[in-house]
Amino acid sequence: MASEDSNRVVGVALCGFGRAGQIHFHGIRQNHHARLKYVVDMIGEEGVLERIAGCLAEYHMTHVQPVSKEQFDEIVLKDPEVEAVVVATPTDSHEYYVRRALEAGRGVFCEKPIAGNIRDVSACYDIAEKNGRPLYCAFNRRFDAGMRNVYNQVRAGKIGRVYQIKTCSRDSPLPSLAYLKISNGMFHDCAVHDIDMVCWVVGEQPVKVMAEGSAFDEGIRSIGDVDTVAIILKFPSGVIATIDLNRHSSYGYDQRLEVLGEKGMLRVENVSEDSVSLSANGGVTMKPLLYSFPQRYEAAYRLELDHFITLLRDPTQPSCVTREQTLLATRVADACEVSLKEGRAVDL
Amino acid sequence: MASEDSNRVVGVALCGFGRAGQIHFHGIRQNHHARLKYVVDMIGEEGVLERIAGCLAEYHMTHVQPVSKEQFDEIVLKDPEVEAVVVATPTDSHEYYVRRALEAGRGVFCEKPIAGNIRDVSACYDIAEKNGRPLYCAFNRRFDAGMRNVYNQVRAGKIGRVYQIKTCSRDSPLPSLAYLKISNGMFHDCAVHDIDMVCWVVGEQPVKVMAEGSAFDEGIRSIGDVDTVAIILKFPSGVIATIDLNRHSSYGYDQRLEVLGEKGMLRVENVSEDSVSLSANGGVTMKPLLYSFPQRYEAAYRLELDHFITLLRDPTQPSCVTREQTLLATRVADACEVSLKEGRAVDL
Amino acid sequence: MASEDSNRVVGVALCGFGRAGQIHFHGIRQNHHARLKYVVDMIGEEGVLERIAGCLAEYHMTHVQPVSKEQFDEIVLKDPEVEAVVVATPTDSHEYYVRRALEAGRGVFCEKPIAGNIRDVSACYDIAEKNGRPLYCAFNRRFDAGMRNVYNQVRAGKIGRVYQIKTCSRDSPLPSLAYLKISNGMFHDCAVHDIDMVCWVVGEQPVKVMAEGSAFDEGIRSIGDVDTVAIILKFPSGVIATIDLNRHSSYGYDQRLEVLGEKGMLRVENVSEDSVSLSANGGVTMKPLLYSFPQRYEAAYRLELDHFITLLRDPTQPSCVTREQTLLATRVADACEVSLKEGRAVDL
Amino acid sequence: MASEDSNRVVGVALCGFGRAGQIHFHGIRQNHHARLKYVVDMIGEEGVLERIAGCLAEYHMTHVQPVSKEQFDEIVLKDPEVEAVVVATPTDSHEYYVRRALEAGRGVFCEKPIAGNIRDVSACYDIAEKNGRPLYCAFNRRFDAGMRNVYNQVRAGKIGRVYQIKTCSRDSPLPSLAYLKISNGMFHDCAVHDIDMVCWVVGEQPVKVMAEGSAFDEGIRSIGDVDTVAIILKFPSGVIATIDLNRHSSYGYDQRLEVLGEKGMLRVENVSEDSVSLSANGGVTMKPLLYSFPQRYEAAYRLELDHFITLLRDPTQPSCVTREQTLLATRVADACEVSLKEGRAVDL
Repeated sequence: MASEDSNRVVGVALCGFGRAGQIHFHGIRQNHHARLKYVVDMIGEEGVLERIAGCLAEYHMTHVQPVSKEQFDEIVLKDPEVEAVVVATPTDSHEYYVRRALEAGRGVFCEKPIAGNIRDVSACYDIAEKNGRPLYCAFNRRFDAGMRNVYNQVRAGKIGRVYQIKTCSRDSPLPSLAYLKISNGMFHDCAVHDIDMVCWVVGEQPVKVMAEGSAFDEGIRSIGDVDTVAIILKFPSGVIATIDLNRHSSYGYDQRLEVLGEKGMLRVENVSEDSVSLSANGGVTMKPLLYSFPQRYEAAYRLELDHFITLLRDPTQPSCVTREQTLLATRVADACEVSLKEGRAVDL
Repeated sequence: MASEDSNRVVGVALCGFGRAGQIHFHGIRQNHHARLKYVVDMIGEEGVLERIAGCLAEYHMTHVQPVSKEQFDEIVLKDPEVEAVVVATPTDSHEYYVRRALEAGRGVFCEKPIAGNIRDVSACYDIAEKNGRPLYCAFNRRFDAGMRNVYNQVRAGKIGRVYQIKTCSRDSPLPSLAYLKISNGMFHDCAVHDIDMVCWVVGEQPVKVMAEGSAFDEGIRSIGDVDTVAIILKFPSGVIATIDLNRHSSYGYDQRLEVLGEKGMLRVENVSEDSVSLSANGGVTMKPLLYSFPQRYEAAYRLELDHFITLLRDPTQPSCVTREQTLLATRVADACEVSLKEGRAVDL
Repeated sequence: MASEDSNRVVGVALCGFGRAGQIHFHGIRQNHHARLKYVVDMIGEEGVLERIAGCLAEYHMTHVQPVSKEQFDEIVLKDPEVEAVVVATPTDSHEYYVRRALEAGRGVFCEKPIAGNIRDVSACYDIAEKNGRPLYCAFNRRFDAGMRNVYNQVRAGKIGRVYQIKTCSRDSPLPSLAYLKISNGMFHDCAVHDIDMVCWVVGEQPVKVMAEGSAFDEGIRSIGDVDTVAIILKFPSGVIATIDLNRHSSYGYDQRLEVLGEKGMLRVENVSEDSVSLSANGGVTMKPLLYSFPQRYEAAYRLELDHFITLLRDPTQPSCVTREQTLLATRVADACEVSLKEGRAVDL
Repeated sequence: MASEDSNRVVGVALCGFGRAGQIHFHGIRQNHHARLKYVVDMIGEEGVLERIAGCLAEYHMTHVQPVSKEQFDEIVLKDPEVEAVVVATPTDSHEYYVRRALEAGRGVFCEKPIAGNIRDVSACYDIAEKNGRPLYCAFNRRFDAGMRNVYNQVRAGKIGRVYQIKTCSRDSPLPSLAYLKISNGMFHDCAVHDIDMVCWVVGEQPVKVMAEGSAFDEGIRSIGDVDTVAIILKFPSGVIATIDLNRHSSYGYDQRLEVLGEKGMLRVENVSEDSVSLSANGGVTMKPLLYSFPQRYEAAYRLELDHFITLLRDPTQPSCVTREQTLLATRVADACEVSLKEGRAVDL
């Protein structure tokens, strides 16, 4: 990065001001090299504009302009100061914003999935590459301090040859049925993060997939989805990955990772709010786990936004999540769905 | 148990004085309701008699008579004071001792497997039932304080409806190739314990099995076995079990269990020699895990021997490991082998 | 706070841009109700202005004006937008800034000690009270999530009647001798935090003090200070407090608190950078503790700054550290010095 | 030890069959080099003989003869097979048995205190030395795996020069007032163990003592004792020890040790019954600590008995608790009492 640019500020438009959008709002706000210019949302709908305006006022960011989806092209993409677009809208409109922003020469940060199928995701990356702009798919766990520590130690050979890897992810709280209906199913909504994690740490592409699932929740069963999942992946080197997932965690957001190698085992355990214990008659009690993803991955969300802003300020920096990795996670999730449906191992 | 019998002492013969045999030697020695009378081993082989005699002298148990396999029938089973036979010989002779002892009306404690296949195991139980004598198959983990605590809490509804169960078992140290060759393979030698554990805790019989495996060790590969295994079991209620196994643990004997239910999660973590930590420049370090099964399950081995002696002293007591459970674990291990070999899910 | 003021922004001057000053710089920067207007430091000295200007540029805060100590009265205190002054200069100039700012009707946040002796501290509070402005003495640990959790649980009666309380504080890294020479000695520099903590949690003023100390470090011995300290405090209710302190912690910044009551014990344990463990041949190793106070109390420093800004925005809010508490901690530290010097218990 | 003696069995008489006596009964029973011959107790009192006889029958030890205090000289000490006497009677009769047994040329294991004052304790050691028989004072914590691990690591220089040492001991359950009345007070009944521990680990004799105490329990106050204690010891090298004690632990038997040195910190934490955790809505809960000393120090009691039997079988072995150490702990406890009473530091 040329020194005259070292303090350059990147203009940003944020699409979507829901749960994920607000997380990224704070990431942008706290990054002193980014300047939020627009928030794009359904501002015609009741209460939406008020909610956005209230939040902007609270943070003294009245220079930010709330705009509607319809104004995205004419206002946001016409503004030469907007270099970056962060897409955190409902899943089915991701591709809409991604394509438009990329075609207009902007860098894009997009919550997964970038599009509804592998071909469309691939097409988005084609545009990004043609225009030389970054397209970053938000695998936030890559930026978790513990996960990254394990990745770094594995890569540095700390545990020698890898034999096994395991992740465990359990949701807290149970999402609404409305959300689950449009979530693309448990493999694409949840497992894709775990699949990305194991492929990233192992550094290979799996060759075989087996998945099993159950639905204990009636609502989830009624929409043909599952809430309890186990997956086995086999990698070319012989490494075997086990992933288990659940929608029901009454005790907080459970997210663990474990890697076994010839020289030892690395584990990422869960995180609590503080380090207080109460020793009493009934036992020794620690605080519950952090409640949900905004708490557990607060720092990770901020760091991945920082990473994205860095990609824009310094085009020589490589993205930490590549096109190949994004496509791989989706392809493996597809294979898991087939395995569950057909009750067989699926070769990749 | 009639009160006049409350201090009755049970005469015991121990077959096999190898690794497992010596563990049970101490269990018998420490049970004040048991009296060891014979140790049966290859006393004709060089050094065997000396080893046994030395140990008996060390513990001032010179009343115990070492006898050869050939003398089992004529001396041991002719002695009316011998009520119980503990079988801890090499795997391929288990059935020999079990059948003879049961037919002679003795109670039998046998290291798994009782015999080489399900039909023969079943036949042994037939004899035991006909003669009204206990045949106990040694699933020692049932008596581990932590595992049993979890079992009890699950049964008491502490976590409500069960969704998932996981075990992880990793061997330390790597057994010799000589042992592995006659071990019946990783599923029957190792996984069978984990399978028993999950079926016991869940209280159901699985309906579907998937298994995957790799061999990182060349010796293990050369004998057609695996050292790295992952198994998924599905139960009728929808519960999904995940088992992962490894022959290579450089950090001690790793044995964990975890159950997820609607109200929470129960975990059995590993156990260290003491509770000392060293905080230093490089981090906070606890002692390694206990080294291997004799250390990890020392109390469990003693308690299962106590349980067996209780079965003989009080015939109204039910065995904690039933015929059905013993057969089930073997049947599921068989299905795992098929799944790995044929690369498919196997229905049970 | 009147609703029309709910988004009112408080203008702030920061005095001192050293270690503590920079911590508060970020606290002010991240508080969206505060606006930094001046940084006061020895800008005539070599490199000082450059350092401040570089940091302001990095954060795009070029509206902030660096001024010299001499300009504090004429520029800073003449600016009606400056409502609050944060004092983080070397200890011996604290009183200078505090008095001037209070006399000019500003609210003051001051690193401890506010002045060199109890009478002068008291005089500062007199001015603050006369002018109706907050004078906040920075006992940052009050805002640590763990410490506050324990305070709240004790106050809520969670452990019933309190019997004992203990703190342990160990410095990492060892401060320079230059710093130690002007630090006012271990009791006023370190113990004062622990004294405040135990008095705050117990909610009483101690009646008796005993202290013992050693100097293992030659430099520390040469300046007549100690590096290893133990203190016992007795409270009117019978509660006994034990404080132990050390300047030498090779393993990170060690800060613990423990309270015993009739119904149980509450403990705040140390905090690590992440939750990763490595299980290997030599044991199970966690990351070291956080290195020093900027890491350990990062959130606490931010929260106490937030608290101070709230005091200015809403004058009805009580300060979380009162005049009495500030004076008490100093008085007890004085008594500890006497106890150590004269080898006797000191009554308060 | 001459090889012909390597399996020699030591005849033992156990004096006292109360709480401590029964712990040692099991230690003797489980040591295969010891043979219990007599149990000495108030067998004339109602129920005592039945209780002893019942326990002996339960363990098939009908060869053991219960005798009364009056028969100690004429029966027990006349029996040439009795080489060792274990004294676990009420405190005020310790010296009676110790002197008689030593004078009769027996080795003695005695619960602390050996006698009511330092001169009498010293006189007992004189007899033991004259007769060349071991007199072992039962500081059981020396044999705790964790405490010994810390001792060994400190001695091996693992943490370099020692700066500080701390112990914390809290009783569970609160002893009866009847016991407390004859317990010699908290310093001699409890603190003496902690004092021994810190002197043993530091390897020095303290030069100064300060103690503070409170009585929250009315009964304890009424007998002039305390239930809450803090002690500071200063050693010649500058090491400072802090000991805190409490009679009231609602959460199990709390026993901790911590040593700070230039290279790091060693800690012995408490021990739970198993390694099970329950993660639920209200937090993550581990089992309570072990309930009381018989559970916490079960292995330590057995190992110290084994140590004593070894001293008898191999006279070249040094006792792990020396005369000097026994006298030192008592002398320091005396000084603590003076310090508390007179509110001053006491030089030793």
